[in-house]
Amino acid sequence: MISFQSDYIQGAHPKILENLIKTNFEALSGYSTDKYCDSAKEKIKKSCNKSDAEVFFLVGGTQANQVVISTCLRNYQGVISAVTGHINAHEAGAVEYTGHKVLPLPNHKGKIDTNELNDFVETFYADDNHEHMVFPGMVYISHPTEYGTLYTKDELTKISEICKKYDMILFIDGARLGYGIMSNETDVTLEDIAKLCDVFYIGGTKVGALCGEAVVFTHNNAPNYFMTTVKQHGAMIAKGRLLGIQFDTLFTDNLYFEISKHAILMAEKLKKLFKDNGYKFFIDSPTNQQFIVLENAKMEELKKNVQFGFWEKYDDNHTVVRFATSWATTEEDINELSKYI
Amino acid sequence: MISFQSDYIQGAHPKILENLIKTNFEALSGYSTDKYCDSAKEKIKKSCNKSDAEVFFLVGGTQANQVVISTCLRNYQGVISAVTGHINAHEAGAVEYTGHKVLPLPNHKGKIDTNELNDFVETFYADDNHEHMVFPGMVYISHPTEYGTLYTKDELTKISEICKKYDMILFIDGARLGYGIMSNETDVTLEDIAKLCDVFYIGGTKVGALCGEAVVFTHNNAPNYFMTTVKQHGAMIAKGRLLGIQFDTLFTDNLYFEISKHAILMAEKLKKLFKDNGYKFFIDSPTNQQFIVLENAKMEELKKNVQFGFWEKYDDNHTVVRFATSWATTEEDINELSKYI
Amino acid sequence: MISFQSDYIQGAHPKILENLIKTNFEALSGYSTDKYCDSAKEKIKKSCNKSDAEVFFLVGGTQANQVVISTCLRNYQGVISAVTGHINAHEAGAVEYTGHKVLPLPNHKGKIDTNELNDFVETFYADDNHEHMVFPGMVYISHPTEYGTLYTKDELTKISEICKKYDMILFIDGARLGYGIMSNETDVTLEDIAKLCDVFYIGGTKVGALCGEAVVFTHNNAPNYFMTTVKQHGAMIAKGRLLGIQFDTLFTDNLYFEISKHAILMAEKLKKLFKDNGYKFFIDSPTNQQFIVLENAKMEELKKNVQFGFWEKYDDNHTVVRFATSWATTEEDINELSKYI
Amino acid sequence: MISFQSDYIQGAHPKILENLIKTNFEALSGYSTDKYCDSAKEKIKKSCNKSDAEVFFLVGGTQANQVVISTCLRNYQGVISAVTGHINAHEAGAVEYTGHKVLPLPNHKGKIDTNELNDFVETFYADDNHEHMVFPGMVYISHPTEYGTLYTKDELTKISEICKKYDMILFIDGARLGYGIMSNETDVTLEDIAKLCDVFYIGGTKVGALCGEAVVFTHNNAPNYFMTTVKQHGAMIAKGRLLGIQFDTLFTDNLYFEISKHAILMAEKLKKLFKDNGYKFFIDSPTNQQFIVLENAKMEELKKNVQFGFWEKYDDNHTVVRFATSWATTEEDINELSKYI
Repeated sequence: MISFQSDYIQGAHPKILENLIKTNFEALSGYSTDKYCDSAKEKIKKSCNKSDAEVFFLVGGTQANQVVISTCLRNYQGVISAVTGHINAHEAGAVEYTGHKVLPLPNHKGKIDTNELNDFVETFYADDNHEHMVFPGMVYISHPTEYGTLYTKDELTKISEICKKYDMILFIDGARLGYGIMSNETDVTLEDIAKLCDVFYIGGTKVGALCGEAVVFTHNNAPNYFMTTVKQHGAMIAKGRLLGIQFDTLFTDNLYFEISKHAILMAEKLKKLFKDNGYKFFIDSPTNQQFIVLENAKMEELKKNVQFGFWEKYDDNHTVVRFATSWATTEEDINELSKYI
Repeated sequence: MISFQSDYIQGAHPKILENLIKTNFEALSGYSTDKYCDSAKEKIKKSCNKSDAEVFFLVGGTQANQVVISTCLRNYQGVISAVTGHINAHEAGAVEYTGHKVLPLPNHKGKIDTNELNDFVETFYADDNHEHMVFPGMVYISHPTEYGTLYTKDELTKISEICKKYDMILFIDGARLGYGIMSNETDVTLEDIAKLCDVFYIGGTKVGALCGEAVVFTHNNAPNYFMTTVKQHGAMIAKGRLLGIQFDTLFTDNLYFEISKHAILMAEKLKKLFKDNGYKFFIDSPTNQQFIVLENAKMEELKKNVQFGFWEKYDDNHTVVRFATSWATTEEDINELSKYI
Repeated sequence: MISFQSDYIQGAHPKILENLIKTNFEALSGYSTDKYCDSAKEKIKKSCNKSDAEVFFLVGGTQANQVVISTCLRNYQGVISAVTGHINAHEAGAVEYTGHKVLPLPNHKGKIDTNELNDFVETFYADDNHEHMVFPGMVYISHPTEYGTLYTKDELTKISEICKKYDMILFIDGARLGYGIMSNETDVTLEDIAKLCDVFYIGGTKVGALCGEAVVFTHNNAPNYFMTTVKQHGAMIAKGRLLGIQFDTLFTDNLYFEISKHAILMAEKLKKLFKDNGYKFFIDSPTNQQFIVLENAKMEELKKNVQFGFWEKYDDNHTVVRFATSWATTEEDINELSKYI
Repeated sequence: MISFQSDYIQGAHPKILENLIKTNFEALSGYSTDKYCDSAKEKIKKSCNKSDAEVFFLVGGTQANQVVISTCLRNYQGVISAVTGHINAHEAGAVEYTGHKVLPLPNHKGKIDTNELNDFVETFYADDNHEHMVFPGMVYISHPTEYGTLYTKDELTKISEICKKYDMILFIDGARLGYGIMSNETDVTLEDIAKLCDVFYIGGTKVGALCGEAVVFTHNNAPNYFMTTVKQHGAMIAKGRLLGIQFDTLFTDNLYFEISKHAILMAEKLKKLFKDNGYKFFIDSPTNQQFIVLENAKMEELKKNVQFGFWEKYDDNHTVVRFATSWATTEEDINELSKYI
């Protein structure tokens, strides 16, 4: 059985395990104050070309979203997101749990539209009753989105401008950031991300780590006592080394980018395979997640040999399914897949 | 430089790393639904001799406290804790962040007193105005406590009875549970714990794991949709395997108990060393944390070769410091220490 | 200047003030434990024909929504509402502040559609990932809605059935309930409301009181220690008599229904006036709020002599405005209005 | 039966009812934007001699505490209070409900000690682990306290200085402020209060109003969009006139001070009565609440003719009870009382 179920089905990149072993008996201080965390932070800042950035390590994506959003917003503010955004749809209400509303905008293949964003905020402030409503204090986007799609540099720039105009924080969920940056169809670099938004995170969990997300405040704008708030959320781990060593490894010798590139290469092969065999795509995704429309009978047959994810019902006879590649996908996986489709 | 700074200064027990490597490329489902999590849960239930227990894995101790307490309490309830309890003193208000008050009782070397507990709750219900106050809905104790001390089986039984009498949940923080159970001076076993309380957790982070705490609801009493609440707290990790494999390893061939026993042995040696050299103990601790009263001059001298933790000021000339052993402490560490004291 | 700005622009019905004065120097116990609260509760239960109902008095509508929703929901649940529902649009995120998500359904003149409701919940439970999402635990509707519209008895019955099927609480916001029940175009009585939903409230603030909403749990289903939760929300007032005396007055000699009927009569006259003069209605409302489409020039002219509410932009040359009648609207107000339109 | 049960057992001062009637049919805008609110705010600012103060009206004391504290604190901060402070003991956890810890200091007849306050904060910042703890962000005191006692001007000045030194907000709960200011044994004026603290409130509910507390931010320091947060707490009322008219009345012709003075006069007479008859006082209170130690048999006998409040058990044969006077207490009440003691 081969699996394209998701990009978190295997453990960690071997170099990460190697470094965990190598450093295992070093006595290090806790709570991300160790030298590996320091080193990883410096490397990330350098990759971002942002000497005034501040980097923190958290364990997972929902946690990163929750901690960042609740820490950056004021009481009376909510966060704008595509209706399909992870925070709005698939985090069990983690943002609302912290007391803040998610303000949903229409979904365009996972993305928000810059004009709709501008209109939403403009209309809000034009409403005489807006002081009885939730203020838009932040824009949340994911890059790549939950549909594997990417914002263009032009779109990000426009969103950034709207945020500045209306004093909103721009927050980018980069749970799969590597796969976005290394896509063949993007003009957005890590430096662009770091330049255009106020805070974002570099996903580790889905890009080769056992766990971990590196939160980057891009311009000395981390909230006061951020680590205290992290603790308050139950999000601080005693052995911060686990996160530091992993990110230090990922940002040494371009590993993060190399393995992301590999996943993109595998995705392109997979895409070609389906295309060549006449399959229909639900969305034209330039990243590691591919959404295929399968006949239900075909889907059931395929399940016998291949694992993939259910996405949504297409019509009575068809289903949208997701195939995800990752740093761990092999040419053999693709070749094996070709036998069944 | 040798270090007795804490019990979380090294990585993981080598068998854990070994198993992480061995299983690294297996494609496993996410969110703790994999076979290693299943296996670990079964082993833990067996160790507890509780077939009707329900086990869940979380990443850290503050997180476990926060999720369990907020999920088990009703809106109008708070949790009773020693004033020195971790939730009251050192979690940055993680419990209050979820909307619940910590109701502090006096500290007796880290423990609460059973009579004071009973009086507190009795007085509460006797107060005509108690419906204007926070209801005691849970009792939180740590075993070992933050001072390394242990409850006797008799004390736990009494606390359990008071909880039943007043319809309160008994929750035991077992961040260092192994070191309590394997103490030479305890009559409390893991089975006793599982029998006497409603929910507890088995600490991994401080007992040989990279991270992870195993939360045990002892009698089919896990809150409905507990994992949804875990997600809502940002506490669910995609690669649940990281926790499952670690606990599966710790509960195979008694590893958890063996390495805890080792730490106790090292603590006893360390204790003897200080005693033989005429040092004064702040508390007579039967577990892996030892609290010594040092002359300030001696403390500064010692710091040059040994790492240990500041606990609190004793008087103008003395300081209480903490030496912690762990699964990773070696005879060599103890021998080296003997040179300096 | 005459005013149709809203239904809360005047003070209280004179009988209420009269009774406040009459009872002013009686020494009464606090926190809604006095005899007037008791009497009002009994009268309301009788009006509802529900001997097993439990009645509580709160100060305002947003408060009632917040307290009821947060008290009835479990941690992992959210509340379904029309996107235009007061809790979703105009309460500054009061529900989210308590940790719960509002799950929006499309708006049909302020109402939710029963089929869309059923589909939403059915789809939720059919989704393999629903344990990562917010569970629908309650349906919130307002009757009349924010657009003055009313559910039919058949619609309420269907919604009630869907709620029972999926174990959701049905909660009706009755901030303007009197104006709904006394509409000429409804088949829904107070008894129907009390029979079909789990909890609702009878609005006082907009129907003749200075403040106050009577929350009715319809079948001995008030959450445990509800008043403790009310206190916890800062929603309990010391002089509960202020609420008890007002509702006791409103539910004596059918006052609540009589003054609501009067407001409907005034609304019908106002409606006829606009219709006879060829004005266009935005919505055909059967209650005390009337939504008219005005040419912008006409609107500006009218503002010189009449107060009314801005609702929303219709097109570049037209605006939707709201005229509200109330228990305090007089024939003279209507006659005066006729001069200007 | 005469009653000294509390200071909220009667309705409102007759002048308040008179003005509610006089203004009843005026069409006023909602949400405290009416002219009576404006007028009341101006009068209060003038009484405080603070032209840069900002005044808001809320309904009750617990609500005022909750809204002010949660709005002023940052996520990582808690509020210092006497262990007996209303927010710590008798508000059902309203502060914790908003996510913030109450940090208790020892009680000295209801007051905190300035040295203990300074030590607490100094020790906090000296602790190496303080970033894992709740930061003290505010000091909450009540004046008069829950025991009827008062801070001296010197004490308030010291507390104010400590707050400034450690960047904490000083918040004074003035639920019974009138009775404090008009005490015969105080050197603290309303101007002093307004000068020394950052925010306080002037209690209406217990000083002649039906409900209402006037929150005063003393130096243009109201949090941004405070009214939006008020709404979010369910604390905004549609007919803000109810609060505006009451406070406008209370601050016209010194009514608030006159009726407070009257209550003090009655309290002095009551005190003398008990003293002359050899009763023992639990606390020497200079305000409207008097705490007497009664033999239990005497207490039961007295209950037949007089209402008073149970405070706490004194010993097996004695009980502490509370007698409260108010704006509404009459000489006749005192004379009547003299018959029974």
